[in-house]
Amino acid sequence: MSEDKKTGRARGEDWWRTGIIEMGPGVIRLRGYEIQDLIGRVSFPAMIWLMLRGELPSEDQAALLGIALGAAVDHGPQAPSIAIARMAATCGVGINNAMASAINVLGDVHGGAGEQALSVYGDIAAAMDQGTTLADAVAARLDRFFAEDRGYVPGLGHRFHPVDPRAPRLIELTRDFAARGVVGGRFADIAQAIEAEVARRKGKRIPLNIDGATAVIYGELGFPPPLTRGLFVLSRSVGILAHAWEQSQETERNKGPLPREWLWAYTGTPVRPFPGREDKSS
Amino acid sequence: MSEDKKTGRARGEDWWRTGIIEMGPGVIRLRGYEIQDLIGRVSFPAMIWLMLRGELPSEDQAALLGIALGAAVDHGPQAPSIAIARMAATCGVGINNAMASAINVLGDVHGGAGEQALSVYGDIAAAMDQGTTLADAVAARLDRFFAEDRGYVPGLGHRFHPVDPRAPRLIELTRDFAARGVVGGRFADIAQAIEAEVARRKGKRIPLNIDGATAVIYGELGFPPPLTRGLFVLSRSVGILAHAWEQSQETERNKGPLPREWLWAYTGTPVRPFPGREDKSS
Amino acid sequence: MSEDKKTGRARGEDWWRTGIIEMGPGVIRLRGYEIQDLIGRVSFPAMIWLMLRGELPSEDQAALLGIALGAAVDHGPQAPSIAIARMAATCGVGINNAMASAINVLGDVHGGAGEQALSVYGDIAAAMDQGTTLADAVAARLDRFFAEDRGYVPGLGHRFHPVDPRAPRLIELTRDFAARGVVGGRFADIAQAIEAEVARRKGKRIPLNIDGATAVIYGELGFPPPLTRGLFVLSRSVGILAHAWEQSQETERNKGPLPREWLWAYTGTPVRPFPGREDKSS
Amino acid sequence: MSEDKKTGRARGEDWWRTGIIEMGPGVIRLRGYEIQDLIGRVSFPAMIWLMLRGELPSEDQAALLGIALGAAVDHGPQAPSIAIARMAATCGVGINNAMASAINVLGDVHGGAGEQALSVYGDIAAAMDQGTTLADAVAARLDRFFAEDRGYVPGLGHRFHPVDPRAPRLIELTRDFAARGVVGGRFADIAQAIEAEVARRKGKRIPLNIDGATAVIYGELGFPPPLTRGLFVLSRSVGILAHAWEQSQETERNKGPLPREWLWAYTGTPVRPFPGREDKSS
Repeated sequence: MSEDKKTGRARGEDWWRTGIIEMGPGVIRLRGYEIQDLIGRVSFPAMIWLMLRGELPSEDQAALLGIALGAAVDHGPQAPSIAIARMAATCGVGINNAMASAINVLGDVHGGAGEQALSVYGDIAAAMDQGTTLADAVAARLDRFFAEDRGYVPGLGHRFHPVDPRAPRLIELTRDFAARGVVGGRFADIAQAIEAEVARRKGKRIPLNIDGATAVIYGELGFPPPLTRGLFVLSRSVGILAHAWEQSQETERNKGPLPREWLWAYTGTPVRPFPGREDKSS
Repeated sequence: MSEDKKTGRARGEDWWRTGIIEMGPGVIRLRGYEIQDLIGRVSFPAMIWLMLRGELPSEDQAALLGIALGAAVDHGPQAPSIAIARMAATCGVGINNAMASAINVLGDVHGGAGEQALSVYGDIAAAMDQGTTLADAVAARLDRFFAEDRGYVPGLGHRFHPVDPRAPRLIELTRDFAARGVVGGRFADIAQAIEAEVARRKGKRIPLNIDGATAVIYGELGFPPPLTRGLFVLSRSVGILAHAWEQSQETERNKGPLPREWLWAYTGTPVRPFPGREDKSS
Repeated sequence: MSEDKKTGRARGEDWWRTGIIEMGPGVIRLRGYEIQDLIGRVSFPAMIWLMLRGELPSEDQAALLGIALGAAVDHGPQAPSIAIARMAATCGVGINNAMASAINVLGDVHGGAGEQALSVYGDIAAAMDQGTTLADAVAARLDRFFAEDRGYVPGLGHRFHPVDPRAPRLIELTRDFAARGVVGGRFADIAQAIEAEVARRKGKRIPLNIDGATAVIYGELGFPPPLTRGLFVLSRSVGILAHAWEQSQETERNKGPLPREWLWAYTGTPVRPFPGREDKSS
Repeated sequence: MSEDKKTGRARGEDWWRTGIIEMGPGVIRLRGYEIQDLIGRVSFPAMIWLMLRGELPSEDQAALLGIALGAAVDHGPQAPSIAIARMAATCGVGINNAMASAINVLGDVHGGAGEQALSVYGDIAAAMDQGTTLADAVAARLDRFFAEDRGYVPGLGHRFHPVDPRAPRLIELTRDFAARGVVGGRFADIAQAIEAEVARRKGKRIPLNIDGATAVIYGELGFPPPLTRGLFVLSRSVGILAHAWEQSQETERNKGPLPREWLWAYTGTPVRPFPGREDKSS
């Protein structure tokens, strides 16, 4: 029956159609599998994969996904997301609310570098699929990048770490998984070629960071760039929860960003009299 | 037709029933009034009142509501809500998202004191309705309060301001409106009697704060305590927006709570070796 | 003292600098005015203006701002923001949390049309400042618009209302305020010229909607486009609060989008056996 | 040095103290372990455990945690959280924002049953530690429960599923892990004793649900009740992401709860004329 002809309950139910979950009384199926068959048979990362991709991964694929998810769980309270989680936890809201306020800020700047990096890698991979060499594809993509006057290459460099200790370890593991045939290794090649070409152009090495390294893994595993933002949210949620929980064990109330006895610097209009008016308001 | 008998579209539409807004093609009615009749004829505070209460206020009532809403718009970036708005604005999310993360933390501790104060005032007013004197009702309620070992009386005192400059001005205006017959003045009496009784018991004055003073006005105007939390959200949203906007004009990215070159103090387990295990993960 | 030389507390306090609010013990100043001088002397819309713009508006300017804010408070529970507020209110979270989840979705699609409309108006105004006629500036901007293959002009048309009853009333009031010299009227001219030119090109009138009409007012009053998103949040927050509050008076728990006895349509992989594996998980 | 004596940077850094993460240039340590030692050596559930508890779990403990996390990832779009994620995804916000609006509603009603169930189990376990038998401890706790007029026992029963297919499977696996000595099994005993006692009192079996079953596992693993709310957020975030992602692949804009051509039922004041007033507003 066409959608136009549907009326009433069928039309209402169809409004919320999904291919993820099927339900009936006593029945829950995820992507076609009975939930009770999945429970205890697939790892948590495999469940994440199944939900997002529609098919079960191999155990090795799930393991590599779990590695990337585990690597980015926390970067400390100077990250706005973590600070927000801790402040929220002192304001009399639930732990889910504290997590929501924090996750909410994992936007283009705080959470988007991995997505942007994978998008660049994908462009290069697509050029290679057309027969371009890795070196040429990288050079062309970087030419375009710098022509757009973008100051930094997503996935490279860190304001704090000379070398982000997570990145080389993640690339090493990706190489191991590639050696065992779990993944192809092309995204690791691309990321390292970008790193080398940028070093050549700039005269100094700007090493791969956590966003670039997890983007390599997510790319190897076939995740589309916009979904990697969601994976980062799942990962960082762990640190957000840990910090909200730790903070909630303390007695602080309404935690501000600075010690309680400090103020902020006021830079605005100096004190001035209210212009002569009658009392009047609405 | 009983709800059980309804099927299809009528059942679906009834699921979302509301008494606030009626709509048809070219027609929008709020609480029974055509929207085009309201626009330009009622002030913004009057529109807020109509939406929440179902009836139009008098102009004076709307003016007094607007005074309370305007008084609590901001308390600076040491308030977690304001700090969160500013940090969020640097993370690459929309201004609505920055506002949401901030509003979300106006919970029991950060936004709930007014609700709690009004609840106390209401208990005292109810006792007076039963014939108790103001002094006796206040004393009895405070007895109960301190018996519960609550350390502070909601609506009194401020960690920073010896006297919160907003509170006496709000009470003064409430008295003016009461003198003109707009409100009864009983909640102002109650709040000041609480202030006096606490001063008597503690041997020092703990003056009314912004939460206590706005609670007086909301009580005078007949708002139930839980709704005052919502009114505070509307009020503080203004400061949240102003700070998010100001911050978004700057170039900072991923603003953390402390200057960029600072870290946090680590208080946990000292560095330790990973226990001897094979590489293994999922 | 240069920022590099600042140390300790001064550096920390400077990290949170703002021109909006100044504070000291017993002192709160907004944009240079003592808070107690503002309270009772400026309307709530005037307070919003002062916080966002840094200067007090005239009473007429504040009145026109209040009109725009009041016009867009609600569009009923089929708007995702309102539905979210109502569902959230049944989930055991605070009213501030319900508001936050709702406000959070006022993004580019749900809350951005006014911002986009004002941006188009501003381009046309800028062309006129360079000496182009209104008609030519509108035609050129629409040429560019349709060349970008954008299907709809922001600020025009409504999926539900043949004519949005709020828009003509808002334009009428803008004209009144322009006649009294409060605003210039140019943005009203521009919006109506766009409406006319689109009608000419498409052969049918696609009337101005609420986003286009409020954008006219915000433009007349000098607000920059990105800030109008924030103003829309302030406005719609009123409806969001009213619906969250109404819903919280009911006993529903975990309100879903459809009547409780309905399901959704499942469109995914049919039920399938779990592939033969040993129990194994992590 | 006492906190009072600390000045400047040290005081600022101490304001954000944490025992979770230590950082220096090129160094990230979680709970004392170098991040590069953790990556690839611990599963994602083990990383979650380490972050929340401070110590590494055994592989079996991590596996059981992963089972509980995987079991509750989704319950379909009639759950408010999932519906909110899908609606938000159509409003022009980031996937992190859609997730935040959804996670935010996992409050006392939508996300709190597991926490409440574990709290009841813990009371019974504490009574048994004092020498009470399981049967007596369960009976006493239920007496207290029903005396408080609470209509339903947390962790039992489901409005939709006669038997929730996840619960028996989770208990079965808990028994397996207990048989292998990974956990003690006491919380499974308690939950099943509650189920039996409630059946005896009510004359019909109200079977354990997903909240009760995951509470058993979290209790066996030693998680405190309030933290189980956070674990549920981590779990349900997976389904929230999957649904937000699926929805974002569609072209719907501003998805409401009901089919686009439907309205809602209006139950309020019938249409009425605006009371006779002059045009006036602010």
